[in-house]
Amino acid sequence: MKAICKTQAGVGLELCEVAEPTLQPGAVLVRVQRTSLCGTDLHIYRWDPWAQSRLRLPLIVGHEFCGVVEAVGDGVQHLQRGDFVAGESHLVCGVCKLCRIGQAHVCRNTRILGVDVDGCFAPAIVVPAANARKTDPRIPPEVATVQDPLGNAVHTVLETPIAGSTVLITGCGAIGLFSIAVAKACGAARVYATEIRPYRRQLAEQMGADRVLDPQQEDVVGIIRRETEGLGVDVALEMSGHPAAVALITEAIRPGGHIALLGLFTQHVPVDLNALIFKSVQIHAILGRKLYATWEAMQSLLVSGKLDIRPAITHILPWQEYERAFELTASGMAGKVVLNWE
Amino acid sequence: MKAICKTQAGVGLELCEVAEPTLQPGAVLVRVQRTSLCGTDLHIYRWDPWAQSRLRLPLIVGHEFCGVVEAVGDGVQHLQRGDFVAGESHLVCGVCKLCRIGQAHVCRNTRILGVDVDGCFAPAIVVPAANARKTDPRIPPEVATVQDPLGNAVHTVLETPIAGSTVLITGCGAIGLFSIAVAKACGAARVYATEIRPYRRQLAEQMGADRVLDPQQEDVVGIIRRETEGLGVDVALEMSGHPAAVALITEAIRPGGHIALLGLFTQHVPVDLNALIFKSVQIHAILGRKLYATWEAMQSLLVSGKLDIRPAITHILPWQEYERAFELTASGMAGKVVLNWE
Amino acid sequence: MKAICKTQAGVGLELCEVAEPTLQPGAVLVRVQRTSLCGTDLHIYRWDPWAQSRLRLPLIVGHEFCGVVEAVGDGVQHLQRGDFVAGESHLVCGVCKLCRIGQAHVCRNTRILGVDVDGCFAPAIVVPAANARKTDPRIPPEVATVQDPLGNAVHTVLETPIAGSTVLITGCGAIGLFSIAVAKACGAARVYATEIRPYRRQLAEQMGADRVLDPQQEDVVGIIRRETEGLGVDVALEMSGHPAAVALITEAIRPGGHIALLGLFTQHVPVDLNALIFKSVQIHAILGRKLYATWEAMQSLLVSGKLDIRPAITHILPWQEYERAFELTASGMAGKVVLNWE
Amino acid sequence: MKAICKTQAGVGLELCEVAEPTLQPGAVLVRVQRTSLCGTDLHIYRWDPWAQSRLRLPLIVGHEFCGVVEAVGDGVQHLQRGDFVAGESHLVCGVCKLCRIGQAHVCRNTRILGVDVDGCFAPAIVVPAANARKTDPRIPPEVATVQDPLGNAVHTVLETPIAGSTVLITGCGAIGLFSIAVAKACGAARVYATEIRPYRRQLAEQMGADRVLDPQQEDVVGIIRRETEGLGVDVALEMSGHPAAVALITEAIRPGGHIALLGLFTQHVPVDLNALIFKSVQIHAILGRKLYATWEAMQSLLVSGKLDIRPAITHILPWQEYERAFELTASGMAGKVVLNWE
Repeated sequence: MKAICKTQAGVGLELCEVAEPTLQPGAVLVRVQRTSLCGTDLHIYRWDPWAQSRLRLPLIVGHEFCGVVEAVGDGVQHLQRGDFVAGESHLVCGVCKLCRIGQAHVCRNTRILGVDVDGCFAPAIVVPAANARKTDPRIPPEVATVQDPLGNAVHTVLETPIAGSTVLITGCGAIGLFSIAVAKACGAARVYATEIRPYRRQLAEQMGADRVLDPQQEDVVGIIRRETEGLGVDVALEMSGHPAAVALITEAIRPGGHIALLGLFTQHVPVDLNALIFKSVQIHAILGRKLYATWEAMQSLLVSGKLDIRPAITHILPWQEYERAFELTASGMAGKVVLNWE
Repeated sequence: MKAICKTQAGVGLELCEVAEPTLQPGAVLVRVQRTSLCGTDLHIYRWDPWAQSRLRLPLIVGHEFCGVVEAVGDGVQHLQRGDFVAGESHLVCGVCKLCRIGQAHVCRNTRILGVDVDGCFAPAIVVPAANARKTDPRIPPEVATVQDPLGNAVHTVLETPIAGSTVLITGCGAIGLFSIAVAKACGAARVYATEIRPYRRQLAEQMGADRVLDPQQEDVVGIIRRETEGLGVDVALEMSGHPAAVALITEAIRPGGHIALLGLFTQHVPVDLNALIFKSVQIHAILGRKLYATWEAMQSLLVSGKLDIRPAITHILPWQEYERAFELTASGMAGKVVLNWE
Repeated sequence: MKAICKTQAGVGLELCEVAEPTLQPGAVLVRVQRTSLCGTDLHIYRWDPWAQSRLRLPLIVGHEFCGVVEAVGDGVQHLQRGDFVAGESHLVCGVCKLCRIGQAHVCRNTRILGVDVDGCFAPAIVVPAANARKTDPRIPPEVATVQDPLGNAVHTVLETPIAGSTVLITGCGAIGLFSIAVAKACGAARVYATEIRPYRRQLAEQMGADRVLDPQQEDVVGIIRRETEGLGVDVALEMSGHPAAVALITEAIRPGGHIALLGLFTQHVPVDLNALIFKSVQIHAILGRKLYATWEAMQSLLVSGKLDIRPAITHILPWQEYERAFELTASGMAGKVVLNWE
Repeated sequence: MKAICKTQAGVGLELCEVAEPTLQPGAVLVRVQRTSLCGTDLHIYRWDPWAQSRLRLPLIVGHEFCGVVEAVGDGVQHLQRGDFVAGESHLVCGVCKLCRIGQAHVCRNTRILGVDVDGCFAPAIVVPAANARKTDPRIPPEVATVQDPLGNAVHTVLETPIAGSTVLITGCGAIGLFSIAVAKACGAARVYATEIRPYRRQLAEQMGADRVLDPQQEDVVGIIRRETEGLGVDVALEMSGHPAAVALITEAIRPGGHIALLGLFTQHVPVDLNALIFKSVQIHAILGRKLYATWEAMQSLLVSGKLDIRPAITHILPWQEYERAFELTASGMAGKVVLNWE
């Protein structure tokens, strides 16, 4: 079969002929219908220092996908041929202390699809059965494929007391955009979103943000204080990975509020810890998705129609146009870009 | 001034001429704009055994109201003449251990407006400043007046993990109806409501319930199980005070689910505790509103437009028609009945 | 090998020659060192209606054990020959929705050792690797074997805000006794225990209860109120399965307090739900152990020496004296009875 | 009366003759028995930049005290002459949104005794009745006086899942020392404490730390990892205000663990946020005490004897020796220093 691979050090990816993956006990073979691109894929494409240090080549890339189960391995009882499934990209060990106490999302033995093992940018993939999440067929495939990053947004929002809260979301990349819709669906009273790119600010409005601000042009803290009795937002979600957003949130959060951190940074960030202490805030650092409580909540929200993230899915291309998909993702002039493998 | 009073033992109320209330230190004088009727008022009207044992007459009745501050007593700093306010009916002591640890909603020294002290079915009322909750003037007065019972619904829903949950609400009186809208606003994926009266079932649909069932005619548990992988609902809110609803919820709740109890019963209820233990459920018995966190969340939900409870407010009458208001409330052919005092 | 079995309907057990169990993939073979008796074993011995309806004979009975891993099946990576382990009696499916969302303790597909599948009253047992909990060898074997029911106590106590709390424990069977020590280890300020049998009241004192009361002779509610500013206890743990204890707790719990229910009842219990609602209490119905967060917490408490439950282990007998072990357990003149298989 | 005052800009304090304070409505007059010194008092003594910017002179200093109520103002109902009380140093407004939602510990209108209003280093003080916390007379006065900072420790520890946890406490000043004892009383399985001064390391051992380390000489992270299956501690409490401790905790905390921040820093701290995100930790920034839930829990722990902090109270001096008390506190060769005013 033809798959999108990284075969050698350096910028770029290439289309390779690879063998169909072999079914293993406890695993399933999935015929891929859609995949989607993530910032991580871009790091791999660009062969940045992180990618250089982490990857062993050659590798089929990609970790966001949905498709149909074609065959189930020995011992798999809860899935069967024909099931519509989506991929959870974190393969956890299941037996370490963290897995044992219900915190598998921080399992130290995690391997990631398309990073540590072959990924999903291919017509077929074999994954452990637990990583093929059965998905209601009423969820369209271009939505089903983005559930892995959407799950990040659901996990982040549900860690905070969102109902009735005023919320600031800094950074409107795909997960930031998703978070706007998740927060509104779960009872956020008012959502402020900040984003430096006009294109994404427009998407943020389509996702339902009540007020979208350019942090380089507008006095975000002043605006928020004026509209919150001078106190600040109840909840702030950091989705940008910019140190300036951390400083902004430190000022904009109200005393007793909740901050969630999801965006990754390129270096250590100077933090005004005293300000956070004097405000006695709670900070939730977020990784991945709760395995698999987040998936269940996400499914309920999607199937019920409470949560509609389609405005953030801006492009659906045939898989052959993957180079353009990477260009679009890199340009910042796209929300989520989906590849169609059917 | 003319007020609606209970002056003697027996059925009924009467209109009396009473003195304008006198402002006290720490209190405010409110010019009443709207009041609304509660089941408690009906107990007093009917002079049932509870009312006979609790009340000392004469008494101005009523505990749900909104209006405008006309004068503030000594020491009151956060309210001023002209503020739009709504009434919290529970007057708590503020100094007992329960008040000290942030559980004032169960203060043992609570006195209730219109029950233990003169109430609000009058053109003016004096209440402790803390019981006059400043209300955003964008909230219409017929909504502002029902915030005390709406707060019960908000308190109940927010005790449970509502976002993404499947919910059963048993009993569609006013608070049950409110709870439907609150649950949907806060991310409930699917709300089942049960109610024996057709009139209220219709209101339940208008409030946004996804499926409204007649528990005397339909197999509620069977229907729920078919639609929840055989497991039952994630959350159940008991709002009817009927023992049959407790039995229904015991069957319909999923293992690991959350039950909230708000409806009051006329006697001890036989409960299948083993079933609840085998399901390892959590049960939240609910009284009143969190003072005043519930009020803040409620205001946010109302002002933002996330929460619209107006379909449950079925009648607005001039105060002079209070007898008809009680008849309507007693008939079951009404949602919330509001009296206009302007 | 010789095992303690139920081979036919009727009272009693018998010693049978059975085949050594066969190792399976994903399972381990454990050489049993100690086992202990539980009320469930007594129900099976007596062949009560529950046992008649649930069991399929013949069956090796028993579900509490510790021992040493003798062989590991294919695919088992976190255990090895020689590991000291103790048994978790609930075999869960791992793939149902409840298992997926981290609530495996209420898995609907649970099979129980010694009830639904062959148990541990034998020199060797094969169990799924997840059910052989690796145990620190500093924990003596007579303690290691009772971790399954001790886990019930740990699970129950840790569901409540125990630190600094005043606690009532009704019923001082083995789990009630364990709960006394767990509550004290986790910061309970004062523990009241009720028990009708003098023998067990004495054990309750040895376990560290601050005040042990006979509910048939003493005014438990009056005593508690006098010592708690008239309010009642912060936390109550029901461990007796007696309806009278439910009524007692309903009176003795303070407003805003927490109740946990673990003891099973022989019938529906009439509950004064209004009293619980007026007190706005939280009720935690408890089943089993959190898989496996409870086990980790329990190990930490045991290894650190914070938790010492040895006074509740009153008898250690050679396995050949199992009839006497059942008599002792049935008599009420024993705490936990342990059988030595070495 | 003679009081310890700051009368002019510059280093030092002086003894002044001041008028006895006047009783106000809602307040109580307390005859002071013991006071204790805090780092804040040292900042004021030294007249550092913070003190220069915050204080308006002249001022009676000091905010930790206990004593006996001598007179109660109008409207005070829960205290009476003769009550033994201790001081809560934060005077909150009671009416702002934060106070209303039960988060008075972050009230923006807080005034602090001995900082913003006259303090307690005097034979008598008048405080709002809510700030005179009734104290069980079984608690000795040298312990009663330190409840304000002890409350910081109780608040910090109780924000974390302490029972059964392995804990790291960085910094063994008074609150760090208190936290050791609080953590152990509430079920911490093992407490590591770090401190650079030998004198305080010795106190840490007396308070019950299981292992006390010098972070400048010992490989704290390595030691912790070796003893925690390579994972790190479940809970870390930052009590030093040193950036190096933040870096240490970032390394030493296990994935999914809880960090609490109490120590204040002299500048922004560079934080490896990615490390915290990859570990998905929760961070609790702590200010003051929960008003007044922390006080109730603290009283229960002290009265029950679960919590004994006396080893941390190293000096009790007559008030006339206040200069020596400040020297001792400044020297680092003291735990808590108490002044006797009787």
